[in-house]
Amino acid sequence: MSSRLLSPAEAEAAIRQQATQLPAVHLPLAALSGAVLRESITSTRDQPPFDRVTMDGIAFSFESWQGGRNSFRIAGTQAAGAAPLTLPDRTDCIEVMTGAMLPIGCDCVVPVENIDVSDGIAQLRDDAPAPVRNVNVHARGIDSRRGDLLLPSGCRLGPAEVAVIASNGQTHASVARPPRIVVISTGDELVEPGQPLQDWQISRSNVYAVLASLRQHGYSTLSHDHVPDDLPKLRERLRSHLAANDVMILSGGVSMGRFDYVPQVLQELGVRMIFHKVAQRPGKPLWFGVGSGGQTVYALPGNPVSTLVCLTRYVLPGLQAAQGATARTVETISLAQSYEVKPPLAVFLPVTLTQSVAGQCALPHPTRGSGDFTSLIGTVGFVELPPGPRVVMEDASLPLYRW
Amino acid sequence: MSSRLLSPAEAEAAIRQQATQLPAVHLPLAALSGAVLRESITSTRDQPPFDRVTMDGIAFSFESWQGGRNSFRIAGTQAAGAAPLTLPDRTDCIEVMTGAMLPIGCDCVVPVENIDVSDGIAQLRDDAPAPVRNVNVHARGIDSRRGDLLLPSGCRLGPAEVAVIASNGQTHASVARPPRIVVISTGDELVEPGQPLQDWQISRSNVYAVLASLRQHGYSTLSHDHVPDDLPKLRERLRSHLAANDVMILSGGVSMGRFDYVPQVLQELGVRMIFHKVAQRPGKPLWFGVGSGGQTVYALPGNPVSTLVCLTRYVLPGLQAAQGATARTVETISLAQSYEVKPPLAVFLPVTLTQSVAGQCALPHPTRGSGDFTSLIGTVGFVELPPGPRVVMEDASLPLYRW
Repeated sequence: MSSRLLSPAEAEAAIRQQATQLPAVHLPLAALSGAVLRESITSTRDQPPFDRVTMDGIAFSFESWQGGRNSFRIAGTQAAGAAPLTLPDRTDCIEVMTGAMLPIGCDCVVPVENIDVSDGIAQLRDDAPAPVRNVNVHARGIDSRRGDLLLPSGCRLGPAEVAVIASNGQTHASVARPPRIVVISTGDELVEPGQPLQDWQISRSNVYAVLASLRQHGYSTLSHDHVPDDLPKLRERLRSHLAANDVMILSGGVSMGRFDYVPQVLQELGVRMIFHKVAQRPGKPLWFGVGSGGQTVYALPGNPVSTLVCLTRYVLPGLQAAQGATARTVETISLAQSYEVKPPLAVFLPVTLTQSVAGQCALPHPTRGSGDFTSLIGTVGFVELPPGPRVVMEDASLPLYRW
Repeated sequence: MSSRLLSPAEAEAAIRQQATQLPAVHLPLAALSGAVLRESITSTRDQPPFDRVTMDGIAFSFESWQGGRNSFRIAGTQAAGAAPLTLPDRTDCIEVMTGAMLPIGCDCVVPVENIDVSDGIAQLRDDAPAPVRNVNVHARGIDSRRGDLLLPSGCRLGPAEVAVIASNGQTHASVARPPRIVVISTGDELVEPGQPLQDWQISRSNVYAVLASLRQHGYSTLSHDHVPDDLPKLRERLRSHLAANDVMILSGGVSMGRFDYVPQVLQELGVRMIFHKVAQRPGKPLWFGVGSGGQTVYALPGNPVSTLVCLTRYVLPGLQAAQGATARTVETISLAQSYEVKPPLAVFLPVTLTQSVAGQCALPHPTRGSGDFTSLIGTVGFVELPPGPRVVMEDASLPLYRW
C-alpha cells in the first residue's frame, strides 16, 4: 500500500501546483514586511541619484593637491539635503557632511580626522594617508541605473526589500493579499484551556501551536474554532468557515476511526481531494483538497507532533505558493551522529543544533511517538530522512525545516 | 585609537548588561507567540493525563491473546473524550479511537488495518504482526509528571511552547511586556517616499527597513518619526519620544559632522552614554545609552547597510535581553571561499547560502561601501569576521546573523 502513497516531495509539488493564487492588493510601506511582491519594481532614479559624500570632511580639487597644495580656505559648508555649492576657486575647499551632494568642482574628499582646521583654513595632516581621487564618494548610478529591475515579482519582502521600495519613492506596492486563514480543531476529548477537565479529557493545544506558528511567519488574518465529533455540526461549521476564508487548516479527524468524519464532510461540501496520506512518519494521514471557490484545505493529523510537522513541511510552503512567491532553496544540514530509519517511510526527525569539528550540525531529538509538544521544546525544527530501512550517516546533507 | 574601541562582543555584552528589564504582564494564549516567559511553567497534570490510545482499532487483554484467542466480540466503542468503558469479559474487545482513554481491563491495542470485522466479531488478520502488550498506547505520565518543570522563565515562546502552556490548561501566561519602540530618522537630505524630490535629496528608507525587521521579529508596538538637522527641534522631539517609549532607535546623526547633533542632545536629555563607536566595519559610529527613566537608546549610523547590520547585531539581542530572554547560541557557518580582511576592525560581511561538497556554506556578497540596500537583496544576513589584516579560510566556523 505504501508504494501507492505520495512521497513528501510529490505531496509538496501537488500543493504548490493546486494552491489557488491570492489576488494582488496595494499595501502601504508599513504593511509590506513578509508580503510577496506581485509587480516588478524598476528604478525611478539612478542610485545613488547624485555623487554622494560618504564621510564628514572637506572636498576640493584633486589636481590642486597634485599641484602641491595641502591647505585650503574653507569657502562654505555643503550640508546633506542642500543644493550643491560650487567651488569658488581651485585653492579653496568646501566642508562636506555625510550624505551631501559632492560640490561642483570637487573630486576629492578627505575625512575630518585627517585635517586640522584653524582660522578658516583646513590643513591636511602630515601623518594622514595621501588623498585619492573619487574616494569617499558614492558615485551616481553605481548601485543601479534608472529603469533597472530592482525587485522581481514573486520576491518576499524582508527589511532590505522594503527599504528598496521606499528608496524608489513608492508609498505602496502591489503584493499578494494576506490569506484569511481559519484553524479548526476536532475531537470530543478536547476542552478549552482553563475549563474544568474530566480525567479522560485534554486541553485544546494544537490550534494554539498552529496559530503561534502562523503568527511567527507573519500571518495575522487568523481565526479559529472547535467542532465536536458530530456530523451535522461539522458540516454546518465547515460550510460557514469555507465561505469566509481562503485557507482552512483542520487538526484531527483524518485517520481511520469511526468518528473521523472530516474527509467525508469536506467532499460533501465540494472540496475536491487532491491527496490523502503521504509516505511519511509522523503525519501519514495528511489530507489536502481544494474547495469549489478555490479555498485551500489542509486536514492535518491530530497528534501534536504530526500537526506541527505537517504545518511546517506543507502548509507554510503552500501559503507561500498561494501568494505567488518564488520557491526558496531549502536549507540543509548534516547529523551529529548516524541515525537508523526503520520504516519504509520518509521520517521527520526533530533536531537541536550543535557544534562538531565539522561545524554546525543537527543532533537528533526523537519524540516518544507523536503525542506530545514537550518533546519538541528546544528543537529548531526537523530534518527529513529518506525512507528506510537504512542508516543515515553523519556526512549526509539533509533538508532542514525550521519551525 | 581603534585599540580603545569596544569589540562587537564587548559592545553586545554592555548592551545585555545595561538593557533595562521590561515589566511582566499576563497575556492570553493568542498573544504569546514570540514573547519571553517571565514565570516558570510547572505541569498541573501528568502528561499524558491517562493511558491514551494512539491508533484507531480494538483493545483487549493481552493475556487472552497469549492464551490462544485471536477473535473477540466487540463489546462497545471507546470514543475520544468519553469516560472509560470496562472490558466486560476477557473474551471481548472494545473498539477504540485515537485519543481515547484505554478501556479498563485492556492492555493491548491492535490497529484497524490489522483486523477483519464481521457480525460484531473482530478477527486478527493472519498476515498482521503479533500483538504486543502496551504498544499503541501513550502511557500516563510518560512525557511529564504533575509538578515537573515544563518551561523555565526566560524561555522564548514558539509554537511548541505556546501549545505546552495551552496543554497545561492555562489561558494566560506571564511574559515580558512587548517593548514600545520608536524609530527615528534624522538628516535634511531625507524626504518621505512619494513626495517630490530635488536632485540632492533621497527618499527616507532606513526607517522602513528597521520597522520591517522589527515586525518580522514579532514586535508590533512601533512608531516612527523624522527629525530635521535642527538642534531645538531634535531636542524637543527626542524628549517627547523618550517619555513615550521603552526603546528609541535613531538612524543617522552619530558620525563626526557639524550637524550630527544626536549624541549631544541625548546627553542633554539625561541619556547616559554607555559607549560610542565599535571596532567594526560597517557601523563604527554606533552609539548606545540608557535614559534616566530606563529607556534604552540605540543611535545607529545612517548608511543603510550600517543601519541594518547594527540593528541585527545589537538591537535585536538587546531587545531580547530587555525581555529577560535566555541568550541563544549563535548559529555558525563556514565560507565557500577564503576572504581577506584588510582593516584592523571586525568585518560584517553579507552572505548568501550555497551548497559545497562539505554541505551548506556562506558565499560572500560584499557591498559597495555601505551605501545601498539593493546590494543586500538575496542575502540571508552576514557573518562576523575577526579583525584584519588576515585571510579567513574556508574551514573557519563563523557566527552567522540572519536579517
